[in-house]
Amino acid sequence: MAGGPWAGDPGRLARRLVEVLGDRGRVRTGLSDRQQHGRDLTVHPPHDPDVVVYPESTSEVRAVLRLAAQERVPVVPFGAGSSLEGHVIPVHGGISLDLTRMDAVLALDPVGRVARVQPGLTRSRFNAYLAREGLFFPVDPGADATLGGMAATNASGTNALRYGAMKHQVLGLEVVLAGGRVVRTGTLARGTGTAAALGGTACTGTGRDAATGVTGDIATGADGTRGAGEAVAGPNAALPGWDLTPLFVGSEGTLGVITTLEVRVYPLPEAVVAARVVFPVLEAAARAAVEVARRCPSATRIELLDERTLAAVNAYRGTAYPERPTLFLEWSGMPAAVEADAARGRQACEAYGGTGFVMERDPAGRDRLWDARHHAGLAVTAVAPGRKKLSTDVCVPLSQLPAAIRHARATVDALGFAAGIVAHAGDGNFHVLFAIDPSDPDELRRARQASAAIVRDALARGGTCTGEHGVGLGKRDYLRDQHGPAVAVMAALKALLDPLGILNPGKVLPET
Amino acid sequence: MAGGPWAGDPGRLARRLVEVLGDRGRVRTGLSDRQQHGRDLTVHPPHDPDVVVYPESTSEVRAVLRLAAQERVPVVPFGAGSSLEGHVIPVHGGISLDLTRMDAVLALDPVGRVARVQPGLTRSRFNAYLAREGLFFPVDPGADATLGGMAATNASGTNALRYGAMKHQVLGLEVVLAGGRVVRTGTLARGTGTAAALGGTACTGTGRDAATGVTGDIATGADGTRGAGEAVAGPNAALPGWDLTPLFVGSEGTLGVITTLEVRVYPLPEAVVAARVVFPVLEAAARAAVEVARRCPSATRIELLDERTLAAVNAYRGTAYPERPTLFLEWSGMPAAVEADAARGRQACEAYGGTGFVMERDPAGRDRLWDARHHAGLAVTAVAPGRKKLSTDVCVPLSQLPAAIRHARATVDALGFAAGIVAHAGDGNFHVLFAIDPSDPDELRRARQASAAIVRDALARGGTCTGEHGVGLGKRDYLRDQHGPAVAVMAALKALLDPLGILNPGKVLPET
Repeated sequence: MAGGPWAGDPGRLARRLVEVLGDRGRVRTGLSDRQQHGRDLTVHPPHDPDVVVYPESTSEVRAVLRLAAQERVPVVPFGAGSSLEGHVIPVHGGISLDLTRMDAVLALDPVGRVARVQPGLTRSRFNAYLAREGLFFPVDPGADATLGGMAATNASGTNALRYGAMKHQVLGLEVVLAGGRVVRTGTLARGTGTAAALGGTACTGTGRDAATGVTGDIATGADGTRGAGEAVAGPNAALPGWDLTPLFVGSEGTLGVITTLEVRVYPLPEAVVAARVVFPVLEAAARAAVEVARRCPSATRIELLDERTLAAVNAYRGTAYPERPTLFLEWSGMPAAVEADAARGRQACEAYGGTGFVMERDPAGRDRLWDARHHAGLAVTAVAPGRKKLSTDVCVPLSQLPAAIRHARATVDALGFAAGIVAHAGDGNFHVLFAIDPSDPDELRRARQASAAIVRDALARGGTCTGEHGVGLGKRDYLRDQHGPAVAVMAALKALLDPLGILNPGKVLPET
Repeated sequence: MAGGPWAGDPGRLARRLVEVLGDRGRVRTGLSDRQQHGRDLTVHPPHDPDVVVYPESTSEVRAVLRLAAQERVPVVPFGAGSSLEGHVIPVHGGISLDLTRMDAVLALDPVGRVARVQPGLTRSRFNAYLAREGLFFPVDPGADATLGGMAATNASGTNALRYGAMKHQVLGLEVVLAGGRVVRTGTLARGTGTAAALGGTACTGTGRDAATGVTGDIATGADGTRGAGEAVAGPNAALPGWDLTPLFVGSEGTLGVITTLEVRVYPLPEAVVAARVVFPVLEAAARAAVEVARRCPSATRIELLDERTLAAVNAYRGTAYPERPTLFLEWSGMPAAVEADAARGRQACEAYGGTGFVMERDPAGRDRLWDARHHAGLAVTAVAPGRKKLSTDVCVPLSQLPAAIRHARATVDALGFAAGIVAHAGDGNFHVLFAIDPSDPDELRRARQASAAIVRDALARGGTCTGEHGVGLGKRDYLRDQHGPAVAVMAALKALLDPLGILNPGKVLPET
């Protein structure tokens, strides 16, 4: 890994990048561009890049990475900047590689249910495009992240219970390795091959009309009826030898730059029912969540918000939710299955003391209900001006969730925090949300102490220090605790693929 | 990689192995042991190992791998020996590492739906164990393979449509690397941690009573009701950094020896309906299969057998199925959803000319129906004594399946073969089954020519040369065509993890 901040000449680097891209406008050294790419919403200290570059094609990314190797300059990929562990902060300076101009849907196979997209595409634009075909992309980390960023961090979120995380969606990648070599992994076996399968005109991105690139080739008899919210997507196939795709999903820009993704897409479900239900105590809500997950095969979302988080949501959104531990639930699929499961789910909740069961069937009602959940993360800091976010992100086996949440609550209370807890409860993943005054080192220290205790507890339960946010800067210190000797293998892979240590240096792997 | 057959002294090697294991009975050099570990059911030429070793623990596997590195002797892991691409044939001699004595279920968490097992456990014994808990393991490659072998080859099979392949089930691994280093990957973060989550007494394996190791810790209110055949399993979580698990799933013994697996298990579905339906022509059956996959979210199996395969099955099993292209179908889940989907599926089949729709609801009827499918692979060679199997295994995007099957049939017909075709049609994966006279080099050459043409066609459609059987010896030559520059990355990873080239040498990666 690069040992410290890049000490080269930023002016010279910018000039060389302009030569390479042939476009002065996409190589920026001004303070606002640099600051925008040097910080996130969290307590991780900012550090600006020396140059921000906006490539528009794989060959431009190649050219930048080739130059970066020649100049030994760090490169940090940047998407929506919504990550929570400092992933995009160029702690050693160098180049911030902003991929947001590579935002096209390149192709869609609605029969095989596979789409090929560029990394800068946001999930909201992707879903708007897919909706016209009766399809959607399920991974929902809350923020309107880019698909490339979501793959790089193996994002997951509210739908992971049913559909899995990014690693379950990504079938193939095009990746530019350090030095500029391009590899295709997974079912993106050969560009021409997959193009034949996906076919069609590209749906182009920014600033251009999104011309449909849809192809379908069931010649006869298809009436367009779609199944309900099920995982009948592209080939589940093995690949020859070990698949390199998962090596890059979750590598957080440290092993290569993702320039194309081939992902599963899913039919919009026929029926959706959302609900919320209030509990007397937090642990009862967690136990009910586990039971709903066990009993309801059509559950897509089982989200837990504690009373503190709901108070922040009410203050931030002007809502009037009961400020008590609450489950937000959703079932989707065929109407009969969904209704039967919603009834089962209600029964399970009531067995744990759940009351005030509210169901929403129409889209507007459901959107209102999920609005609370989606703003929970923002609400916690929004209601405390000047404070920045620190979030834990452990994930434990489902059977361990109630005890892990009980432990987490006791830990933050003992350290004098009123931090709220939100959980993707059906998935065993939960967050303690601290709103920290970054100018108060003692507060930060205590929050980190709480975070460390919660991680230790999760590891002891067979869990992981990060369920969906990734490692970045914030969880590096736990990697050895969790992986043991496997960290040495990871470090060897990093050294193999990035021998100069210039791809997002200072992230993921612990200091050696 | 090792350049050629091991040229050491087998007697000395055996003596050193006896020293290491302290048990003469588990180090075998007799002809019958060696021959049993030197061949498979296919046309791949046999080559016997010098020694067969039967370890009973991870530490014994470690000791063998440490010795193998000292002596520079090849090591080939061996499970049920049911693989179809010569994976277990020790083409360079050396040690066949028979893992069948490591066959315990180590722990089961029925709430988190995760089990920890040893690699030598067969799927039938695993399922017998799980059935007592109302659970099952879905991956069904046909043969009664071991879990370790299934992970090493990323096996899939009839249920992959709904549940995915092995790579979707394996949450974590314990792997012994070349030289004897042990790493744990995935959610097997820390032995003690996961033990805490999984808890309980081990269900021990061979020759011992299978004492239940079941634990559950939902303290109250759980009535044991189980959801229907859905993927609500262990954490979908990200892991810190890139996950090393998928590097070993599908690595076919070339990167390490799997000594423990943590896998998802699923609740037995509430309702299951199986059906078969006959078509006038093969392509109509393929088109109907695609349509059933699209329209039926509760479909678990969509299997296609052509008229030639059914003729072989009838001859082998004494059945009287119509010898015409046939779909074998299964739906599972909640009763209402299953019945609705079966009706949809029937409608879709009839739109493509399907007739003689037979449904089976009771277990005995369903078992009879699936018996035909499960014996298809064996039937083809069983009815032609002295012949050995050569199977293609391409997988294409679902939208491409009808055209790919049409191409495959035309190819084998043009080359003068009456080879049958069976497809995991909902998954885009199909096999052309050749029964080859191994003493006829011209026949073998023509079959390989057909296989190559089918692979080229699949790659041009965005598919893969192997959908579930893996690479082994048989698909090595296609790796570069499919992966291009990524093969160099794979070779570099192999060199990194197995610098002496002694783990299953001569497999997966093409000759350099």
